[in-house]
Amino acid sequence: MDALLRPQSIALVGASDSSRGGWAGRLYDNLALMDFPARLHLINPHRAELWGRKCYPNFAALAEPVDLALTVIPSAAVPATLAEACAHGLRCAIVYAAQFGEGGDRHGAARGRALLDLRARFGLRICGPNCMGVLSLRERLLLYPAARIRSVEPGPIGLVFQSGGTFQYWLAQASVRGLGFSYCISSGNELDLDLADYLEFLVADESTKIIVCLVEGIRRPAAFMAAAARALALGKPILMLKSGRSERGKAAVMSHTGALAGNDEVFDALCRRYGIVRCRDLDALIETCVAFAPGRLPNGRRIGIVTASGNTTALIADYASEEGATLATLAPATLDRLAGLIDAGLVAGNPLDVGAANVRRVDKYAEICRIVAADPGVDIIGMQGQVPTLPDEAPDPAVFAGIGAATEKPVVVFGRLAQNVSAAARDYRNKTALPFVHGLPAAIRVMQALATYAGQRGRQVPALPPPVLSPAAARALPAGAALDALIAAHGLTPPRSATAPSPEAAAARAADLGFPVALKIVSPDISHKTEAGGVAVGLADRAAVLAAAQAMRAGLAAQRPRARIDGFLVQEMVSGLEYIVGARTDPLYGPFLVLGLGGVTVEVLNDTAIALLPIEEPEVRAMLASLRSAPLLAEFRGRPPRDVDALVRAVLGLTRLFLDHRESLSDIEVNPLMIGPQGAGVRAVDVRLVRAPEKEDA
Amino acid sequence: MDALLRPQSIALVGASDSSRGGWAGRLYDNLALMDFPARLHLINPHRAELWGRKCYPNFAALAEPVDLALTVIPSAAVPATLAEACAHGLRCAIVYAAQFGEGGDRHGAARGRALLDLRARFGLRICGPNCMGVLSLRERLLLYPAARIRSVEPGPIGLVFQSGGTFQYWLAQASVRGLGFSYCISSGNELDLDLADYLEFLVADESTKIIVCLVEGIRRPAAFMAAAARALALGKPILMLKSGRSERGKAAVMSHTGALAGNDEVFDALCRRYGIVRCRDLDALIETCVAFAPGRLPNGRRIGIVTASGNTTALIADYASEEGATLATLAPATLDRLAGLIDAGLVAGNPLDVGAANVRRVDKYAEICRIVAADPGVDIIGMQGQVPTLPDEAPDPAVFAGIGAATEKPVVVFGRLAQNVSAAARDYRNKTALPFVHGLPAAIRVMQALATYAGQRGRQVPALPPPVLSPAAARALPAGAALDALIAAHGLTPPRSATAPSPEAAAARAADLGFPVALKIVSPDISHKTEAGGVAVGLADRAAVLAAAQAMRAGLAAQRPRARIDGFLVQEMVSGLEYIVGARTDPLYGPFLVLGLGGVTVEVLNDTAIALLPIEEPEVRAMLASLRSAPLLAEFRGRPPRDVDALVRAVLGLTRLFLDHRESLSDIEVNPLMIGPQGAGVRAVDVRLVRAPEKEDA
Repeated sequence: MDALLRPQSIALVGASDSSRGGWAGRLYDNLALMDFPARLHLINPHRAELWGRKCYPNFAALAEPVDLALTVIPSAAVPATLAEACAHGLRCAIVYAAQFGEGGDRHGAARGRALLDLRARFGLRICGPNCMGVLSLRERLLLYPAARIRSVEPGPIGLVFQSGGTFQYWLAQASVRGLGFSYCISSGNELDLDLADYLEFLVADESTKIIVCLVEGIRRPAAFMAAAARALALGKPILMLKSGRSERGKAAVMSHTGALAGNDEVFDALCRRYGIVRCRDLDALIETCVAFAPGRLPNGRRIGIVTASGNTTALIADYASEEGATLATLAPATLDRLAGLIDAGLVAGNPLDVGAANVRRVDKYAEICRIVAADPGVDIIGMQGQVPTLPDEAPDPAVFAGIGAATEKPVVVFGRLAQNVSAAARDYRNKTALPFVHGLPAAIRVMQALATYAGQRGRQVPALPPPVLSPAAARALPAGAALDALIAAHGLTPPRSATAPSPEAAAARAADLGFPVALKIVSPDISHKTEAGGVAVGLADRAAVLAAAQAMRAGLAAQRPRARIDGFLVQEMVSGLEYIVGARTDPLYGPFLVLGLGGVTVEVLNDTAIALLPIEEPEVRAMLASLRSAPLLAEFRGRPPRDVDALVRAVLGLTRLFLDHRESLSDIEVNPLMIGPQGAGVRAVDVRLVRAPEKEDA
Repeated sequence: MDALLRPQSIALVGASDSSRGGWAGRLYDNLALMDFPARLHLINPHRAELWGRKCYPNFAALAEPVDLALTVIPSAAVPATLAEACAHGLRCAIVYAAQFGEGGDRHGAARGRALLDLRARFGLRICGPNCMGVLSLRERLLLYPAARIRSVEPGPIGLVFQSGGTFQYWLAQASVRGLGFSYCISSGNELDLDLADYLEFLVADESTKIIVCLVEGIRRPAAFMAAAARALALGKPILMLKSGRSERGKAAVMSHTGALAGNDEVFDALCRRYGIVRCRDLDALIETCVAFAPGRLPNGRRIGIVTASGNTTALIADYASEEGATLATLAPATLDRLAGLIDAGLVAGNPLDVGAANVRRVDKYAEICRIVAADPGVDIIGMQGQVPTLPDEAPDPAVFAGIGAATEKPVVVFGRLAQNVSAAARDYRNKTALPFVHGLPAAIRVMQALATYAGQRGRQVPALPPPVLSPAAARALPAGAALDALIAAHGLTPPRSATAPSPEAAAARAADLGFPVALKIVSPDISHKTEAGGVAVGLADRAAVLAAAQAMRAGLAAQRPRARIDGFLVQEMVSGLEYIVGARTDPLYGPFLVLGLGGVTVEVLNDTAIALLPIEEPEVRAMLASLRSAPLLAEFRGRPPRDVDALVRAVLGLTRLFLDHRESLSDIEVNPLMIGPQGAGVRAVDVRLVRAPEKEDA
């Protein structure tokens, strides 16, 4: 990575006045602007001299081996050029061209393989292809072919964007907003070096305090998660925008960078697990950076808000409600002090409207903010304010700086909406040492993000336990009664039941169990019994059971003459709240748990929560609380509270069962899991296991 | 309104160097800047001269009656001052001070009454109090006490903001973005002139083509709706941000302007009905204005998107999916033409990625955009682009202008994120005559808003039919069996049922109906039967009915000894999909309909839709389609499709029943309404009517 981000010598390959819309010239200009922070060699076999410098025909002609090659040449020429370079000691290359297999074309894929071969034979590391280069701000290396990134200043933020184009526009605006950067990498199609590599570097880099990513797909999820876990343990926030949430978005990702966007809900679960702050759009990524940049985190979620406008108070209260933010309850002593400072006719509260008269008396406004910040019930202070926008505005930055200096809590200053930010405004901002966020919804969201991240920071993410080690044992998931016993032993209590070979026997077993009962047909050939007419419920007496079983048998015989019927299952009628609980392995991100409200009617409303495994009891309880249907678990409209403890035990048992046997199970789902009243336990009415296809022993 | 917005003579009352943080001075400066577009009189009894002008002690001393008084004096002095002014012919006053009753204090309320008395006696019209004035751009009147609004340019947008502070910051940023305005009114607490008045004026004003509002509460909903209906019929879009969605937001609105924020879901329904474009935040209000400003509307919803970045393609596809936008399917001929123009290795589609090579070849990029715009399957064109931000960028505006000129469809240019906009950028924008929207989610949302508004524009909103006219007849809602028959005649078919005075009789009636049956206790004293243990379902035989009825009677006697028990209702067990349908009258916005998925479990998930009444069949079907649970009405997991026609008839019947009898009904709710399979109709299992309290005959 040193060869890429801190090279001592650079070769500009394809140096020419006209290559790729002048990219070589722009790279040269950016190197020249910084007075050539590394030894530069120009390579072009067709030119003897360029820009007043000697041009070399190839790497063999150079006096030294080169750390980094900037290849601004057509994709077809890249493999041979880099092969020659490797033979003469090249350590790393940035490949700007595209068409190395990302679109799926044959020639491109061959070129990609040729580069990977150089990686294998010579240890060449590659950034790109289809990237637009990197910036090393402290090293003053702007290896990006555009003038727009010249405004980027050094600072504590590390950046990895898969998109080279968005890179420059985002960085330009981030710079307008006063954000500073350590290393910025446009990673492109990540044929060799990928997001996980860059993340690992930035996590380890001491000058980087925050990491911001624009991601299309994660190529090595395990390495990515390991780096994210280290970042979380070290308290370096990762802020991320990831595309490919929708089907069309996934397709666009695949054709753009050849990456798999993956299951977005599972990726969301991954972000929660690793404390990754996921942002909705490119503007949100900037606002979140602004809020995290000062490095302060709160000790809790309680937000105290000071505004200078009744309308802002009303709007921000709305956004706080929408985002589920916790507005602090101010102490009586605080309210008393505030009452004497705000405009007559206003009532002190949170959000606080200080009144129009205080808008121009900045000292008093600052005093009010300090009072709110000092309230022990406030964890984060959000205060309305903005950098100057008019030429003759010259507020004293010391006033706002004093608010931040008076507290160790995070202070977020927010304006009503986006605005132009001038150099004078940035200077003011720097002197206040406060973050100035644009927009009221953004203000609430970044404060929420600070609080959520603060709750996670420093956490050690538990590792996935190994599956049962011996491949033989791993497949040793029993069948039949032993499997039923194993499932029941994991908290997934089945309904009382009995099997019967015939309709007549079913009626007799039902009488033993007590009416009413449910009846299900037993057949290895149908997986969705309800749809096949193989389930009857609420059967009230022997005659009803007999009739239902006969009808099922006749119906199935008519519908699917080849289906084998093994008999009938008679079950106690269980009632309660229907849940669905399942575990699977995501092809990218690994084993995960889904739980939610069940029942055919409700599934369409999709009230589910997802978490990566392993998971512990508090997280299961948090997942349950996150469901829209959470009120149903408590006492609700006269119904007693549900047996949440038994539900939690069943969920943890299911995940344990799945993780222990995940080599032999591809899917386990309980639907419905009936949650009885408190103390009555749960009933796993239908447990569906899908065994993994047999693998060859290695 | 002429006296407020086009005054010939103005009195600045309280003219002084120091009043209210210099507001009088700032008003004077803004009048002077525009070279005094109206005759100005300074009034201050304590000064003989100010700013080189004569000061008058009062209105009596003036040589002419004055159209408009700008009162920059303490609230306590306002009533007497204006009384004197009225006596000398004043027509209108802007009251900047607060404390005229909005906080609920006694002295303020008295001052408010004094002003309303001047309104009654002299016809004085009042803007405010607690406002910050108005701008009449073509008349060059900037009656607002701050320099920030000097950048506002004339143009087609009319503005009404209840908030005086947000007014200037929003207008300043709107002006940075190149928007121009006709009249801008900060309406404050709207003691006299209110939003409906201003809206009425702007709808009638020919120079105003778009109206933008920041609203806290609607004081005269009927007048507001009438103005909105006219705007819709004339095709003048109303773009609105309204606060008070949350409980805290409502409280803030009340203490800020003394207005009722109202039920936000019903207000949303109002916006849909009147084609009002509701925006989420102040930035969205700007982006939406930008998109509507050129005045082009699409003939359909199909969006064609051209981007110059693979990442943008992926992101915008995600946002399109989130917003439910319809991406156009491009014609084969279009795809063929595009394939020859975009970068090698890319596949033509929608959203279209033209490739990096086309980014700098603007002519070719424009050609691609024109091809997409010409596709008959495309109704709106969204194309990536931005105004220049670097000093040496000087793109030719004619290229982009040519795209708009080549089509009559709306073209929305979008950049990736917010950015600084310079005067040069505004000039470029003006020359292209295209709207430049900031941010990818905003781009999708504004295109959706254009399409939705276009579908509504010109529509005549049906008026609410009068209730049954005679007060006697209006209360003539029958009772007992006649009421049941009336309900059934409106499509709300009841389950087959019978009543019985005793448990024994209930068992006998059940045998007549056929088992299983449901049993409900009949008592005038309980409204929620389920919670009171007064409902039993699935009773399979006579013994079960007898036992259940006895248990109900005993339970109720123990629980509420005074509750009267009239007997029992025995009903056929109906099955089907449970819906809830109801109608009520909102205290602000009038009669409305709620419908959604029903059942105790599901209600907590709140899958409901709301519409103002009256409503017609297509809207009912659209409401049903808007539910998250809509798939349940069609064939679902092997269950037959539901009887949607019967459901629609029942909903329309319920609304007719409610509207006809709304003088005597405060609420009607059917819960559950069971929707049987196609052809089997619906069953109104439980119909709850709440009669309105008797009113005195006037």
